[in-house]
Amino acid sequence: MAGGGSDQRALQYEQTLMYGRYTQELGVYAKEEAARLRESGQRRSVTERSRTLDLLEYEKGRCAKCRRSGYPYVLEAPARDFISVCTVRCQKFLISRVGEDWIFLILLGLVMALVSWVVDFCIAICLQAQKWMYGGLDSNVFLQYLAWVTYPVVLITFSAGFTQILAPQAVGSGIPEMKTILRGVVLKEYLTFKTFVAKVIGLTCALGSGMPLGKEGPFVHIASLCAALLSKFMSLFGGIYENESRNIEMLAAACAVGVGCCFAAPIGGVLFSIEVTSTFFAVRNYWRGFFAATFSAFIFRVLAVWNRDEETITALFKTRFRLDFPFDLQELPAFAVIGIASGFGGALFVYLNRLIVQFIRKQKTINRFLMKKRLLYPALVTLLISTMTFPPGFGQFMAGRLTQKESLVTLLDNRTWAKQGIAEEFDYIGHSQAWKHPQVNVFVTLVLFIVMKFWMSALATTIPVPCGAFMPVFVIGAAFGRLVGESMAAWFPDGINTDGTIYPIVPGGYAVVGAAALSGAVTHTVSTAVIVFELTGQISHILPVMIAVILANAVAQSLQPSLYDSIIRIKKLPYLPELGWGHHEKYNIRVEDIMVRDVRYITLNCCYRDLHNVLLTANLKSLALVESAESMILLGSIERAQLQSLLSHQLGRPRRLEYIRERAAAEKKRLSVVSNTGSEDAGPRASQEVRFQISTEESSFNPTRPVPQKPLKPALKRSSVVERPTELPTNPSDNSGIALKNLFCASPDAEGLEDDGDVEDDMTLREIAEWEERQLDEQVNFNTCKIDPAPFQLVERTSLHKTHTIFSLLGLDHAYVTSIGRLIGVVSLKELRKAIEGSVTVKGVKVRPPLASFRDSGTSSSENEATELHKLWDRHKNASLPREHIPSESDEKSQ
Amino acid sequence: MAGGGSDQRALQYEQTLMYGRYTQELGVYAKEEAARLRESGQRRSVTERSRTLDLLEYEKGRCAKCRRSGYPYVLEAPARDFISVCTVRCQKFLISRVGEDWIFLILLGLVMALVSWVVDFCIAICLQAQKWMYGGLDSNVFLQYLAWVTYPVVLITFSAGFTQILAPQAVGSGIPEMKTILRGVVLKEYLTFKTFVAKVIGLTCALGSGMPLGKEGPFVHIASLCAALLSKFMSLFGGIYENESRNIEMLAAACAVGVGCCFAAPIGGVLFSIEVTSTFFAVRNYWRGFFAATFSAFIFRVLAVWNRDEETITALFKTRFRLDFPFDLQELPAFAVIGIASGFGGALFVYLNRLIVQFIRKQKTINRFLMKKRLLYPALVTLLISTMTFPPGFGQFMAGRLTQKESLVTLLDNRTWAKQGIAEEFDYIGHSQAWKHPQVNVFVTLVLFIVMKFWMSALATTIPVPCGAFMPVFVIGAAFGRLVGESMAAWFPDGINTDGTIYPIVPGGYAVVGAAALSGAVTHTVSTAVIVFELTGQISHILPVMIAVILANAVAQSLQPSLYDSIIRIKKLPYLPELGWGHHEKYNIRVEDIMVRDVRYITLNCCYRDLHNVLLTANLKSLALVESAESMILLGSIERAQLQSLLSHQLGRPRRLEYIRERAAAEKKRLSVVSNTGSEDAGPRASQEVRFQISTEESSFNPTRPVPQKPLKPALKRSSVVERPTELPTNPSDNSGIALKNLFCASPDAEGLEDDGDVEDDMTLREIAEWEERQLDEQVNFNTCKIDPAPFQLVERTSLHKTHTIFSLLGLDHAYVTSIGRLIGVVSLKELRKAIEGSVTVKGVKVRPPLASFRDSGTSSSENEATELHKLWDRHKNASLPREHIPSESDEKSQ
Repeated sequence: MAGGGSDQRALQYEQTLMYGRYTQELGVYAKEEAARLRESGQRRSVTERSRTLDLLEYEKGRCAKCRRSGYPYVLEAPARDFISVCTVRCQKFLISRVGEDWIFLILLGLVMALVSWVVDFCIAICLQAQKWMYGGLDSNVFLQYLAWVTYPVVLITFSAGFTQILAPQAVGSGIPEMKTILRGVVLKEYLTFKTFVAKVIGLTCALGSGMPLGKEGPFVHIASLCAALLSKFMSLFGGIYENESRNIEMLAAACAVGVGCCFAAPIGGVLFSIEVTSTFFAVRNYWRGFFAATFSAFIFRVLAVWNRDEETITALFKTRFRLDFPFDLQELPAFAVIGIASGFGGALFVYLNRLIVQFIRKQKTINRFLMKKRLLYPALVTLLISTMTFPPGFGQFMAGRLTQKESLVTLLDNRTWAKQGIAEEFDYIGHSQAWKHPQVNVFVTLVLFIVMKFWMSALATTIPVPCGAFMPVFVIGAAFGRLVGESMAAWFPDGINTDGTIYPIVPGGYAVVGAAALSGAVTHTVSTAVIVFELTGQISHILPVMIAVILANAVAQSLQPSLYDSIIRIKKLPYLPELGWGHHEKYNIRVEDIMVRDVRYITLNCCYRDLHNVLLTANLKSLALVESAESMILLGSIERAQLQSLLSHQLGRPRRLEYIRERAAAEKKRLSVVSNTGSEDAGPRASQEVRFQISTEESSFNPTRPVPQKPLKPALKRSSVVERPTELPTNPSDNSGIALKNLFCASPDAEGLEDDGDVEDDMTLREIAEWEERQLDEQVNFNTCKIDPAPFQLVERTSLHKTHTIFSLLGLDHAYVTSIGRLIGVVSLKELRKAIEGSVTVKGVKVRPPLASFRDSGTSSSENEATELHKLWDRHKNASLPREHIPSESDEKSQ
Repeated sequence: MAGGGSDQRALQYEQTLMYGRYTQELGVYAKEEAARLRESGQRRSVTERSRTLDLLEYEKGRCAKCRRSGYPYVLEAPARDFISVCTVRCQKFLISRVGEDWIFLILLGLVMALVSWVVDFCIAICLQAQKWMYGGLDSNVFLQYLAWVTYPVVLITFSAGFTQILAPQAVGSGIPEMKTILRGVVLKEYLTFKTFVAKVIGLTCALGSGMPLGKEGPFVHIASLCAALLSKFMSLFGGIYENESRNIEMLAAACAVGVGCCFAAPIGGVLFSIEVTSTFFAVRNYWRGFFAATFSAFIFRVLAVWNRDEETITALFKTRFRLDFPFDLQELPAFAVIGIASGFGGALFVYLNRLIVQFIRKQKTINRFLMKKRLLYPALVTLLISTMTFPPGFGQFMAGRLTQKESLVTLLDNRTWAKQGIAEEFDYIGHSQAWKHPQVNVFVTLVLFIVMKFWMSALATTIPVPCGAFMPVFVIGAAFGRLVGESMAAWFPDGINTDGTIYPIVPGGYAVVGAAALSGAVTHTVSTAVIVFELTGQISHILPVMIAVILANAVAQSLQPSLYDSIIRIKKLPYLPELGWGHHEKYNIRVEDIMVRDVRYITLNCCYRDLHNVLLTANLKSLALVESAESMILLGSIERAQLQSLLSHQLGRPRRLEYIRERAAAEKKRLSVVSNTGSEDAGPRASQEVRFQISTEESSFNPTRPVPQKPLKPALKRSSVVERPTELPTNPSDNSGIALKNLFCASPDAEGLEDDGDVEDDMTLREIAEWEERQLDEQVNFNTCKIDPAPFQLVERTSLHKTHTIFSLLGLDHAYVTSIGRLIGVVSLKELRKAIEGSVTVKGVKVRPPLASFRDSGTSSSENEATELHKLWDRHKNASLPREHIPSESDEKSQ
């Protein structure tokens, strides 16, 4: 048990000590391992111990192929015959295979393909039901309207209510949250089964309503949920699923799968997920993402074939543009125009979306009303939007009766709708007819469609249901592209190639370009280009698409953050903004300009009073530990909770009782100096004292640690009951001391020392206060405390650019700024964010950080450095000579 | 100008102090800086100083838009009229624009497109010349053979000789080297203009010879060269181009441009370059890569249109497969077979390539002979290969008369070559006829082509000319795919769709799949899939291609390293191997198992003798600086060169002369105690001493730094000649001291103090030795020394997986392992590489690092930690009391 505990601690150490990042996963880890240890620990003797460690070692490594080292079962039953050993070995081998990445990825792909297909199927049924209702009631326009409007309102309201009740985390897109999670932040309850159910059902209903909503963002979230749940499930077989960094890698792959199986676009899916979720991408995950996304897309399309929807696997929105001459070089300016306009449009969309959210939030009267009736807002928005699209009403001017998918198919059509002169001859087959209105030009229809859908989509995505904005934006972009294409076709009816051969313009190609450009502008990605190729099954327009997407990105990125970053800001998620493109100040600003110089720290030789004061004044999650206030040499960082537990232990009731007992014993001894009869309780007491010291040394004194509130493992509890029955019973009514009252809101469930029956807490309040004062003056013993010995350090001259890189690479929360071992400042995510947003603001105003100007004034730095080194050196020289130590100085500073 | 030095130093600091990564750039910097400081020191007055700083401040910020702060020229000419100020301001603004990323990227794209097009054009001419010669001599087979063989031999020999003479760095692909450079390693002379010229001309000749070589790898190198040169050129306008991290980002974009403009495949280019060069990829570079690669691909194709080669921009190897039913689901197993077989083939290719190189190296007699006549090997190989492909000879059975490009075009043809029964009716138009042999089946031709080209390509890529292996492998893959496709077509002449409609099998599609799979297997990338889509202009086979590529990768990655990694190993470039896929031991091995515990360090209070000894025994590039041998608190790391310069300064001739002068002065003083006449030469001497001290404080004492030899910039040189005619003449015959003789091979060109005419070096050798001994016993003054105050630190329990991640993320070379501030070990790239290759070997044998087993045996670590903390603490307690310092102890340890 002892060894197991340390092993476990070791594991935990490895995970926590780097960069002080703590995750929920740790709890799971600790629990399982404790359970394992419990089993094995029960019947352990000293000789058995090494064997158990072997076992453990094996268990840990069992996912590795063919380890030669001792097979544990052989030890237990050496007489077992060879064949049975082989059988077990094979069985073990098979189980170990479960730990392989590819099994996990295949399973993930399979599950996601099924989910995607089922969701699509249900959405299709929902939409058909609406059409059927609408079609069946064509005798009465009012009834028709009622049916047209009520149906989506009911679905959206249900969706909003359902997610609200089951898991409010399921609301919205999910990409911003995944971006944050992949950065290392743990969002609570974000990857649970409840959220999964809420997201899937909520999404199906929301999309089934026919509102302009998308499924891409939610699918990223759903895939991540799947991966997290699958990990949990697989961890029943293999231990490797508990590793935190592995889980992050799998989540990154899951994001790719989400996009991939949603659009049957494996390559675009991988790229899109990289662009929207990562700042730095591990290329080894790329391969994982491709594998899972391809498998998923494959199954997703195979399901369509099996369902007889398709004859073979083809693209989702197949186009049939001519291959030999897709576009003329002279058409490129038109594509560039689409790109630039899309850039502005995308920025406008993001702005509009944020404006609506902020408007709704600010309007207090509206807000109070809406908060009371949470489902009213979705219902109202749905009512408004579906009224606008009612086909016999205004909807006739904007192809209102087409679903999103149908609109897209018609927009990508390879025929020209409005050829000059021969517009009448154009045969409107199928859905394309919806764009044709007897009185109105097709251009007017397109313009109306774009304008109406634009605000509708921006509005609809603010409804609190699981929904994405990618698909609506994609459709709007396609419509815009089509508009430009049709205009071009009308302008140059014979094409613009002057070489004799007539190649008429293909407006469908413009639609493809527009779709990629607008969705790229809104999401700030270039991989939408790849997504459109995969969606349409044609890559002939690659150059126009790339040019338009890049121009759109350039424009949109200089105007607004991406939609996902905008949501991150609205939701105030802990995320580091991107450095802009081409802002050179980032190379010029230094850490010393942005760091906080007034660092809270504790010294190695401080007393508990200092600790107390520091905890009272500082609100940081972790504190720097320096050697002394003069040297300021950084030794490590300690978590706040650790310090609190140190303090609470020092002032806790168990120690006071110990003190009382000792006092009583001393009293007794003093009384019975002459009568030196070996009293029986003196023996145990002495050993008790020794034991206490030893246990402190071994740092097995960790119960009082109020680390992330998790119940202590039953294993440890039980074994502690078995092995040291009279020791350490909990004292729930533990009085943590007067001085601590104002420190800890949640009193740590200190399982302190036993309330020895023979001692009664007879101290008065005044005595307690005195005792506490005395205790506070003692020097802190850091031995029982978990110290992060290598917190991340930066130099004061590190540029903002580099700092940003390091923070985002390593997912740091804060870093200490040191100068030759001396702590001189600290920089946290907050300062960094401020600095970046100060230098790279949206409106183009660049603020120079206040201290930047001082930096330039001369050769200060190297002088500083020399001076500091000098100090150190002088100090060192002095240290070798006898000198007086002034503790009060360090005390003052450390407060 | 004075401030310029400090500015530059600031930049330099920022570059060097992070992680102790030192690059060649430093040398240039240091020298320039020294020169500047020297110059400016001349005429500096206190009042002038602040003004100059202002000027500088502007210079630094001039790339920022519209800075309001004082325009320097206004200071100089306040009376100047407004308009002229505006003009200058606009001019400045325009110049500042040059610093923008997009200008750089557009220029890069443009240049690379032009280079690519010109190279292609020249290659085409070369190949046509060969054909013309061969065609013109059809009367005589022997003459034909001579022409066919001599031409490539001459070209290859010229190419090999040319690159050998001009820049041997230009040999080979360039991708392995770029991978190393992007990791932060500086390869000498790798990005110079000479290399550029050698690479471009060598590549053109090599490819013009018709050997099975590719241009992809070299183009990555050429693009990087372009970027580096362009950076240098642009830095004449804006200062931002000198930033190291920016240059690395631009190099990453350049790699994408290289692939992009080579294949006109911007997306595939970006992805391929990411996969082959990066371990962790910054998503912000992605956007840069796309921008530049798209622009480059666009220009590259536009050039073709302008040259009337093409009517419009289309794919390079356009295919015309049918869109409606590209493949049947039941064909997927055949595609999977292609993938798996390609995986084995790819691994075999890498193995074969390495085998040939190693064979050539090992055969000492051959080697000695070849080394003597360096051009013999290329000539022999070329002779062999061109003999084999001689069309009237063996070449007739393997389409020998087709160039690589022609072969690829024919292989991707959408017609079936061998339909059962109707093979004769197939009309062989154009180049396809080459595959048809009157006696031999098309299958035999294909098989022969594959087998012959396979070893030929593996052999040809070992020729020391600039060449890549991607394209030959691509063609072989296409041939293999075609073979499978033709077989399928022969097996199922009516297609395998059972639904009634006849969809015959498209062998061209199989060729596409095969090409992607084999090239993916050889390079270990999945983005070859995207490259084939862009090359062929069709994405209809996306799923088969993805499946085949992924399977091929899975097989190849488990058998062999990628071709580039293989070359890295052969060339012994400093690179960190990838962690395998699914090897779980990496989570189990800790840094403490692999670290070197016997760290060489120096203490803050050590004397020069210790320094000397450490330098003699340790061969590390940098040494750890600890507070003292007892505390072992890590303060920073110092470069070896810095220490050497410290030592050389301490023992150098200037100091000895100073000593002699002082001794003489003391002597004089002693002699003339009474006659206190203020002698004139006492004044200058005193001031000299003061000057010396000041200059040390300001750390302008860096001339003795033996940094990489780079000539100073001419501009600086000239000004330095003008401004300091009498100061600081160099002393080339400087005697660096006896003790140093064995330390420095290259004696630092110490531009020390002036050899005062009035003192003569009259010390005897014995006196010098004595003096040096005395000097060595002095304590080291680190003030003039550049210390990296925050070298990267790890905890001993960090897992191998995490260590690998951090090393590759940050491009580390070594990291110190600390435990609460105490240095306990060091881990460098070497140890890490060993550990990874030990645990993740190619042959599936896993070696556990020697210390790993100790780790599991109990609670050692946390106890250790507590003990260490205890030590620190005890020490601290002692430190506050008077105690004796034993310097000898630390001395012993530090040796």
